[in-house]
Parts: sequence; structure tokens; C-alpha cells
Amino acid sequence: MNQNGGEDKVENGYDPEDDRNHNHDNGKLKDLGELSVERLFEDQEVPSWRKQLTVRAFVVSFMLSILFCFIVMKLNLTTGIIPSLNVSAGLLGFFFVNTWTKLLRKSGLLKQPFTRQENTVIQTCVVASSGIAFSGGFGSYLFGMSEEIAKQSSNTHDFKNPSLVWIIGFLFVVSFLGLFSVVPLRKIMVIDFKLTYPSGTATALLINSFHTPQGAKLAKKQVRELGKFFTFSFFWGFFQWFYTAADNCGFVSFPSLGLKAYKYKFYFDFSATYVGVGMICPYIVNISVLLGGILSWGLMWPLIEKRKGDWYPAELSDTSLHGIQGYRVFIAIAMILGDGLYNFLKVLGRTIIGLYYQFKYKGVSSDLPTADHSSQVSSEVSYDDKRRTQLFLKDQIPAWFAIGGYVAIAAISTAILPHIFHQLKWYYILVIYIFAPTLAFCNAYGCGLTDWSLASTYGKLAIFTIGAWAGASHGGVLAGLAACGVMMNIVSTASDLMQDFKTGYLTLASPRSMFVSQVIGTAMGCVISPCVFWLFYKAFELGVPGSQYPAPNAVVYRNMALLGVEGFSSLPDNCLKLCFGFFAAAVLINLIKDSVDKRWGRFIPLPMAMAIPFYLGSYFAIDMCLGSLILFVWEKINKAKADAFGPAVASGLICGDGIWTLPASILSLAGVKPPICMKFLSRGTNARVDKFLGN
Amino acid sequence: MNQNGGEDKVENGYDPEDDRNHNHDNGKLKDLGELSVERLFEDQEVPSWRKQLTVRAFVVSFMLSILFCFIVMKLNLTTGIIPSLNVSAGLLGFFFVNTWTKLLRKSGLLKQPFTRQENTVIQTCVVASSGIAFSGGFGSYLFGMSEEIAKQSSNTHDFKNPSLVWIIGFLFVVSFLGLFSVVPLRKIMVIDFKLTYPSGTATALLINSFHTPQGAKLAKKQVRELGKFFTFSFFWGFFQWFYTAADNCGFVSFPSLGLKAYKYKFYFDFSATYVGVGMICPYIVNISVLLGGILSWGLMWPLIEKRKGDWYPAELSDTSLHGIQGYRVFIAIAMILGDGLYNFLKVLGRTIIGLYYQFKYKGVSSDLPTADHSSQVSSEVSYDDKRRTQLFLKDQIPAWFAIGGYVAIAAISTAILPHIFHQLKWYYILVIYIFAPTLAFCNAYGCGLTDWSLASTYGKLAIFTIGAWAGASHGGVLAGLAACGVMMNIVSTASDLMQDFKTGYLTLASPRSMFVSQVIGTAMGCVISPCVFWLFYKAFELGVPGSQYPAPNAVVYRNMALLGVEGFSSLPDNCLKLCFGFFAAAVLINLIKDSVDKRWGRFIPLPMAMAIPFYLGSYFAIDMCLGSLILFVWEKINKAKADAFGPAVASGLICGDGIWTLPASILSLAGVKPPICMKFLSRGTNARVDKFLGN
Repeated sequence: MNQNGGEDKVENGYDPEDDRNHNHDNGKLKDLGELSVERLFEDQEVPSWRKQLTVRAFVVSFMLSILFCFIVMKLNLTTGIIPSLNVSAGLLGFFFVNTWTKLLRKSGLLKQPFTRQENTVIQTCVVASSGIAFSGGFGSYLFGMSEEIAKQSSNTHDFKNPSLVWIIGFLFVVSFLGLFSVVPLRKIMVIDFKLTYPSGTATALLINSFHTPQGAKLAKKQVRELGKFFTFSFFWGFFQWFYTAADNCGFVSFPSLGLKAYKYKFYFDFSATYVGVGMICPYIVNISVLLGGILSWGLMWPLIEKRKGDWYPAELSDTSLHGIQGYRVFIAIAMILGDGLYNFLKVLGRTIIGLYYQFKYKGVSSDLPTADHSSQVSSEVSYDDKRRTQLFLKDQIPAWFAIGGYVAIAAISTAILPHIFHQLKWYYILVIYIFAPTLAFCNAYGCGLTDWSLASTYGKLAIFTIGAWAGASHGGVLAGLAACGVMMNIVSTASDLMQDFKTGYLTLASPRSMFVSQVIGTAMGCVISPCVFWLFYKAFELGVPGSQYPAPNAVVYRNMALLGVEGFSSLPDNCLKLCFGFFAAAVLINLIKDSVDKRWGRFIPLPMAMAIPFYLGSYFAIDMCLGSLILFVWEKINKAKADAFGPAVASGLICGDGIWTLPASILSLAGVKPPICMKFLSRGTNARVDKFLGN
Repeated sequence: MNQNGGEDKVENGYDPEDDRNHNHDNGKLKDLGELSVERLFEDQEVPSWRKQLTVRAFVVSFMLSILFCFIVMKLNLTTGIIPSLNVSAGLLGFFFVNTWTKLLRKSGLLKQPFTRQENTVIQTCVVASSGIAFSGGFGSYLFGMSEEIAKQSSNTHDFKNPSLVWIIGFLFVVSFLGLFSVVPLRKIMVIDFKLTYPSGTATALLINSFHTPQGAKLAKKQVRELGKFFTFSFFWGFFQWFYTAADNCGFVSFPSLGLKAYKYKFYFDFSATYVGVGMICPYIVNISVLLGGILSWGLMWPLIEKRKGDWYPAELSDTSLHGIQGYRVFIAIAMILGDGLYNFLKVLGRTIIGLYYQFKYKGVSSDLPTADHSSQVSSEVSYDDKRRTQLFLKDQIPAWFAIGGYVAIAAISTAILPHIFHQLKWYYILVIYIFAPTLAFCNAYGCGLTDWSLASTYGKLAIFTIGAWAGASHGGVLAGLAACGVMMNIVSTASDLMQDFKTGYLTLASPRSMFVSQVIGTAMGCVISPCVFWLFYKAFELGVPGSQYPAPNAVVYRNMALLGVEGFSSLPDNCLKLCFGFFAAAVLINLIKDSVDKRWGRFIPLPMAMAIPFYLGSYFAIDMCLGSLILFVWEKINKAKADAFGPAVASGLICGDGIWTLPASILSLAGVKPPICMKFLSRGTNARVDKFLGN
């Protein structure tokens, strides 16, 4: 926006050949118009932000929230792996309201047509609400405080059993902070940085495609393409399901690059979602992720594993934070923090300088250079971008409101939380709230680049720092777990909101309606999630290993807290040194990237993207690079087609897989298990198994 | 050809506007020419049949024969499953001679350019030669006579150990008969019936594409398309290999339709070969094969299995010919014989009527209606078809030569064989030689429809009939096995030769050079194969279960012979009745097909194609139907493109997979085993295995 202020002026300035120019422009724009989504919607009035928030939208959101809450809760308590539900929310919202309005239209009672903005509001509200079911930690930190889990750990006297009242209270005082913490940054993230937010973008394209007015040829083709890949991706998910009877079964554990590479998490996991994500993300992000994977799982971890018995005790399991997993988690955190902090300070510095100039020479601030991480930015601003930016900036949320809101809620929260958790002193909370916006920024930023929200990683950071600070004798375990909750709620909501802002940006929904929808959704979530959890808690025996609801993450989190209270000294040898090194490296890479010529700078990888596979492994990097490769080859063959249909194909892949999680979860809730296990065994093991099975 | 005689006349007739018409025609032909292969080769002179047979071709053939003979022998003695090597032979022949001629051209010594006809001659010679390694029965009937195998069966006194001399003699007296038996039928099979012979067609397209003169746009595109799918298919084969560490591992045992369907052999086995075959075969063939699969494995066998303990003893294994396998094998044979016999008699009848008319009213015979099984025949004959037919009919092989040759060799063979196998009386042999041409026709015909040569099935038929006739007391076991050899050699060579005639037809190679090449190749094979077998026999311990070379089929064949001597009464209950029923049904279906209007007749399935999955299962039917479906959808989307590139894509798929068998065999010979087993277990079994592995 800033870069193009000059151009805007020329267009609005006086020109003697105005009419001819205008016609000429129109012709040019019509040619471009074939590729422009917003031109198709040109005739549709965008409702005011108040009108985007309809009662029917929130009624549907409430119903969907309950549905999704059940799904997330079930996943929380069984495997602990929660996929992104943005897309399902958008799609189901459309179907519900569309059916509703169609019925009303037939009966002649329809007062207001169903717009894509309203659709976005529903999606945002449902995501916010069901997000609480995850960030509320019912399968992790919160349930990790209970007596049941405490009995399974080495520290059995520090526990706090769940109760409906304190959980709802706790959620209400911590869940709204994330919203306020990143609201002021929305312009920087969405417009200036042009972050992709793959899920948010895909959802927006899906919503746009639903609402495209008839007669638009390209849009129709795009919808057909999206539909084709949506169907493919959905049925591919369905097909895969049959072969995943147990852990390590099915296509997700296909050692496509060999068993040795699989051991180090280099494999293609056949996830349509991440192939689609790779097609949406800029090339440099995909390359960075792959580079990070090669550096960590290909080089560093194997090297560190050679020091087994020297750097860390040899008898530890692969997943112990005292051992190799400690290096993985903490080096990743260090690198993410380095990149995040650098960018946060850069933005902060520029904002201050900008404000300073704005006070000194009014109005020139728009000439300020902006941070630009996207390699795919074009110097010419398209009609779509102009219109979207215009509407995105129309409804402002004042900075004083955001900052005031943050401070007010932080104050209330600081006052109330120690009453819920006696071990959590007010000054711990204050410190968290001082650092939280930075971390929220980091998470929203990283999520924008790669679609991964690392909320739980930041939560682990809180466990360690606050736990160590409190110390074992002062109930550090509970303090750490509670701090984890505070932190996770902030960073998770922040990335969700920013994802929704991106969706809103692409569907012309007002940031204000997005914000209000998030607030209402969050409030819903703070009531629905504990109630649903309470139902599970009373109906089933939770947290018992081997049972139907083992809640595996709860034990993991409690054990991390136990490790945390022992402080930094409990980290394996040289881990802290490596962390400092990688933190510095992340800052250094950013400095080089910003100081060298842009031509070369765009080839320098992004540390944030590199850090994510440090902890998770390279499998999703390989998916993403495949997506990139497909797009690259497609662009080589037919650039125009790739540009027009690439995002539609990518969205189809992401959405199809996303919607499949819904029937998959329902099957899982109904106790229907896949019939077959596709297993991968080495030749030797296979011979043993064949002998065992008597073949 | 016959149908369009009238059209030919019009074109050659006098027309006052001749010049204008001529130009017009030329324009039309140029447009059509884009799709014609032979127009591209128009400027290339087709060498006379003698010139197609070069010394260098036979030198290369000899070397390749030895290579392929090793491969086939190894496969014979390890698993007994031999893939078609036509394509590999064509491709390797091209590479050898092409490199050779390129070197000569550079040194200025090249006298004769390398033509596609020469290439076809090499391919034919190598296939004929390596075919003997299969039909010689070194892993089946011939080795089944040995003492080593006799020790493993219930009859230990009837044996004949292999020896180089009698094997070479035996092969020489039986291997040439097949050639003569089907030579007179080549016009009926290739031109009148327009049988597809998918492997032969694919090989021809490959050879054509290698030799296409530069500058032809469509041909280049086709070659590129062929190359693309060749590469894909090759690497797909390569990729699959890694996951096949043991039996029932890998994509070939992927229960893509569920475990229950897999048990009844309904699954997609990811074979690029059969998907390609399905794209080449007419729709009705693919549908017939699938129908046959559903009828047999979906309906009949499960119903018969319910009679277990009633119709056949319950304690028998699934592969016992006294049990369910007996129904599968014999009902399939009955149906194949019914269809084959009907068509043989129909052709014979028409030939006699034709000859009669030819004598009576000379030259009108060409108005005879022809049998037409192909649903894809167009009423207009293309330039390609005209030119190919013209050259195919140019070099005749006189019927008296074929019949005379057959009778002469049969006489010699009848005289010599009883001296090799005392148990094989001369009248058994005479009976075999009387029925053999019918069966050879059936096999060549079935192979033309579906690409399956059922030589071993006919061999089994001989085992049973001759074995039963001789009886156990008169050495029926050895007589049966020897009869099997005589029969297999005839029917297998017949289908190979016809396959090669089709390749020759499509590459303008003369039937005479094909025939000579087959004769030379067969002679080579009769010497090379026994020598290679002798090497294995002396170097390794063959036929010991669990060893490196278990030769599994040898035991199977011997046991079948033991069963055979017990006669028809040894068949399970009602099997014979069912056989008669299906034999009659096959004849009836053919009668209906020929009597109803052609419009409806083309929707009636082919009994021959239906019978093949009776014995093998439906997995390859599913591959073929998928190929059909791909072509069908492609034709719906873009008919012109599908017609132009469909065969290229299909050939690419078949050839890539075919060539992969070469490195796969070499890896197997070198003892390199795949590292991973992709296993499919039911949920219950998987839980047991996981427990066993201690996960």
C-alpha cells in the first residue's frame, strides 16, 4: 500500500486526456479482469461491518462450535493431534446458511442475502470457539494437573483436579488477551509482509468460489478445478483411512525414501494438505523448510546421537527432553525466537521512526520502506489487491483500543489467576504478559509463512521458564503448567486471528467484524469447551494408559513440567550453547538478508521456516517441496494457466483433506476402526513376522 | 480390406474433374496424414524380405538370446512367473544395432542402414529363442520328470533325469510344429479379425517411434508422450520393487478394495503393464474379463466353497486340483475350448466355402463377410491399414508349405519321441498332433484378445488326457509330462509367432522374414536353453524346497500328472457337469453374438476373455478396466488427442514396466533383495504382530 501511494495519486490527478486514458485503462483492466476475483464481485455491495454480523451467523456458529468442540475434544483425549478445522468451518457454514436462506427465499421471508463476508464471520467464530478446545489444554497442560495424571508421574502431591467453575473462569481471563495482542499488527502481517497464511487463503478462495456471481467464465473454471481436486483430495483421504488400523500404519508412514531416511523423518507422507500448502507458499519458504530439515535431521541430530553417552545419558529414550529431544525442541525454540525477535524489533523500530516522522512532517510517512519477505510480490498492484487493501483499511480498530484492552485484561487476569492457582505468583503472570505480545507476533508470523501454529512449543517454553523460576519446592510443576496455559492461549489465539484476518482480507470482510466474531467465538468456546470436557470427564475414565481415552499429552506435559523445575542445568550438555548459537545465527541471517541487495536477499532462507522441521522432521517439508515442484513445472509449461488455477488446485487439495477429518472424526467417535494396516517392515523383520504368522 | 474394395475402385476410376479432385484429396489426406504413421515412413523404401534378414541382426539376436535365456531360466527355477519379454527384446535390439550402425557410419563402413524391419526381425528372433526357455519346461514338466522331484511325490519309480542330449533332441522335434500350425491363419488373425495383440502392438509402436524420420511433428509428440509414460512406468516399477522384500509384499498385493475382496482376487495390483493393455484392448474385451471375474470369483467359487465337504473333501488346500482349484482350472479350460472350437470351426467353414466359391466363380471370394470381433473397427480403411495390409499380403507363405511342413515334422516327431520317452506311445503323439492346431489357434486367438498366453493351461490339459489314457501302470506320469511338453511347445510358439506377425504387420516387416527369424530363433533356443539349464543343473542344487532354486512348478506339474492318471473320476463332484455346461455356454454365446444384429452383438461379452480370470482372478481385469476407463474419459474430453496419443501412452506404460523386468531380474540374479516389505494385515493380525514385535 505504502509503496503505491504515488501511483494512486497519479490515477486521481488531473490529466487533459483523461477520457481516453480512462477508456484505455478500462480495456487493459478488462483483459486483466479475467484473472481478477474482485472484478467478478464488483457489482455486489459489501455490507457494512455491523451488517456482516447477523444473528443467523452466530446461531449457525454456535451449533457448529458444539460439533467441532466434540471432535477436537475427542482427538485431544485420544491421540492429541489436532488438524486445522478452518476449511471445514467455512464449508459447513456455507451449507447451513445457504440452505437456510434458500428455504427462506422460497417462502419469501428472506430479508438479507447470504454474503461471503457473513460466511467468513461464521468461519472465524467457529474457529475461535473450537480453538479453545485445543488451547484450553484439556488433553495437555490442564488435565496434566489432575490427580489421575499426577499418580502416573514422580511428583504426586502437586495436583489440581478439574472443576467446571475454575476452568471456565481461567479460560475467560486468559483467552481474550491474544486477540488484543496482535490486532495492531494486522496491517503489517497481511498487507506489508504479504504473509500467505495457506489455510486462511485456501478458506478464502473456497468461500469466494461459493459466492461468485454466475456468468464468470474463469471463476466457473476455477471452481470446477477446485471441485475436482477437492473431490480427489477428499477421496484420497478416505482411501488412506482404510489402511491405518494402528500407529505406524498407512500412507502417513510410507518410507518412500527408504527405511533409514524414514527413521530420520525424511519421507513423503502423501498428505494432500501439505502438497497444497507447498503450492501456496512462496518457493523460498519451501526451500527453507527443506534446508532446515536437512540441516537438523540429516546432519545435526545424527552427529549429536554419536555423542550418546557423552553429551547425554545413553539409556534415555528418543523422546526424552533430557536427551536428543531436548536438543531438537530447544534449538528450534531458540531459532524461532531469534527470527521472531529480530522481526518484532525491526517492525517496532520502523513504527517508532514512522510515528516520529509523522509527527514531524505530517503525511510523508507513507514513503517509509516496508519489510517485505515475500518473493512473489509484484511491483504493480493488481485491482484485487487495491480493492482488498482499501476495504481492509477502511474499518480501523484504533491502537489505543487494542493496547488499552490488552492492559486492562492483563491487569484483571494478573489479579484473578493467583486465586485460581496459588502457585502462580502475580509477578510470574506479569512477566508472561510483558513477553507474550512478542511471542504472539512470532507465532502469527511463523504461521503466516508456513501454516504451522507452534502454540504448544511456546507453551513448553513457559513451562520451563516459569517452572524453573518457581522451583520444585514452591509448587513449580503446577505453576509451570498454568503458565503454559496462559502462554498457549495467547499465542494460539493470535495466530488464529491473524489467519482469519487474511481470510477476511481476501473476502472483503471487515477487520472489525472479524474481531467481534472472534470475541464472540472465544466467549462461546470458553463455555462450550469446559462443558464438553466435563461430559467426557464424567462419562469416561480419562487418562488411563491403554484405555479408550489415554490423553497421552497430559502425561507428557506433566513430565516436562517436572523437568522444568530442575532448571537449565537439566538440559543435556552443550544444548544451551547450541541454542545461543542458533539464536545468533537466526538474527545474523536476517541481518544479511536485509542488508544485501534484494536480488540476492531473496535467495537467503528464512530462519523461522528452517526451525520448524528441527522439531517435527522433514516429512511435511518434502510434501511442500513437491507442491512447489508441481507449481514450478506447471509454470514452465503454461504460466498463465498455473497462475489462474494454481491456487484453486492448492485450495482443493487442502480443503478436501480438511473436510475428510470431519467424517474421519465421526467414524472415530462412533468407534469404527479402519480394517487394514499397511505396514512397512525391513526384510529381516518381515521374515520374523512371516514365521510368527506361520506363513 | 475386403469391405473397401469398392471404394478403391472409385478412387482409381476416371473423373473429368480429376485434377481438382486430386488436389482436394491431397489436402484432405494431408490433414489425415497428421495421424498416419506410415505417411511418415512413405519416403523410406521397405527392404525385400531377404534384406530384412541381416547377419548383424542374428549376431545381436544370439547375444540377447543368451542374456534373456539366463533371465528366464532363473525366473523358472525361483518363482516360475515369467513376464513377456517382447518389449525388452525390441528395445535392446534397437540399442545394440543402433550403436553398432552409428559406429560404422562414423568410420564410413556402413553398407546398409538400420531399418525398423530389421529391428522387428531381431525382436522376433530373441522372443522365439527365449520362449523355448519357458516352453521347454525346465522349471515345470521337464524337470518334474527328474529323480529329485520324484522323491518329493508319492510316485517315486517313474523318473527320467535330465541330460543335455535328449533335451536338445526333444526340443528340436517338438518346437517347430507350432510355427507351421498357425502360419496359414495369420491373415485371419491379423487382418480379418483385427486382433489387438497388445504386447505385439506396443512393441511395434516402440520400434516405429525409434525409426520415425525426423521432422514429423505428431510422431515427435507421440514419441515424447511414449517416452514420458515409459519413464514413469519404468520408475514406478523401480519404486515398487523396494517394497517387495517377500511374498505378499508390495503394491502387487495391495488390497485396494478391502481384504475380503483381496481374498477373492479382486484388487488393483498397480501393474502399469495391464493398465496399458486395457487401453489397447477393445472395451468389450475389458468388460468381458471383468464380467468373467465377477461371475467366477465373485459368485461361483464362493458358492462352490460353501459345498466344501460335500462336493469335495473339506481338508484339501485351496490349491489342490481335487478341490476348488479343480473347478477353477477345468471350467476355464472348458470355456476356452468352447469358444476356441466354435471360432475354429467357423473359420474353417468359411474358408472351405470361400475356397469353393473361389473355384466356382473366380475372384468373388473377397465379398465374403469376415468375422469381426473388434468394436473399434472403422468402416473407412485408413492409409496405414491399406499400406500395411498390402505389404503383409505381398510376401506369401504358401499353404502347401505350411501344411506340408507340419505333416513332415509331425511324422518325424511321432517317430522319434517314443524313443526318447518309452511311455509315450506313437498314437498318443498322433492324437496330440491332430488336435494341436485347434488348440494353437485357440491360444493365438485368446492371446490376441487379451495378451494372455495360456500355454501352460493347454499343457495341463495334455497331462490329464494323455496321463489318464496311459494309466498309472503304464508310466502315465511320464507320458503325461512328456505330452504336456509337446502341447506347450506347440501352443506357446503359435501365440508368440502370431504376436510377432502383428508386430511385423505394424512395422511393414515381411511375414516371410518373420517366419525365417522365428525358425532361426527357435533353433537357437533349442540349443541355448538346454545349455543354460545344464549350467544351472550342474552348478546349483535344483528343486530342493527352501533352497535358492526350489523350482516350485516342477512339483506342481508332477502332482498334476499323478492326479491325471487317476482319470476324470478324480475330479471333484459336479466339476465335469459344470465343464460341459460352460463349454455349451461358450458356444451358445458365440452363436447368439453372430446371429443377432451387429448393433447389439457388439455388447455381448466374449467367452474366451471371460474364462481367463476364472483361473487367475480378477486383479488384472481391474487393471485393464482402469485402462479402459482412462481412455474412455480421455475420449470424452478430447477425442482427437485420445486417438492420437492413447496408443503411445499405453505402449509407454507397457514398455516401461517390461524393460524394468530386465534390471529387476539382474538384481535378482546378483542376489540383491528389496529392503522393505509393504505388508497388509487385518486390524486383529496387526495387533498380534505389534505385540510380537514388542511395540
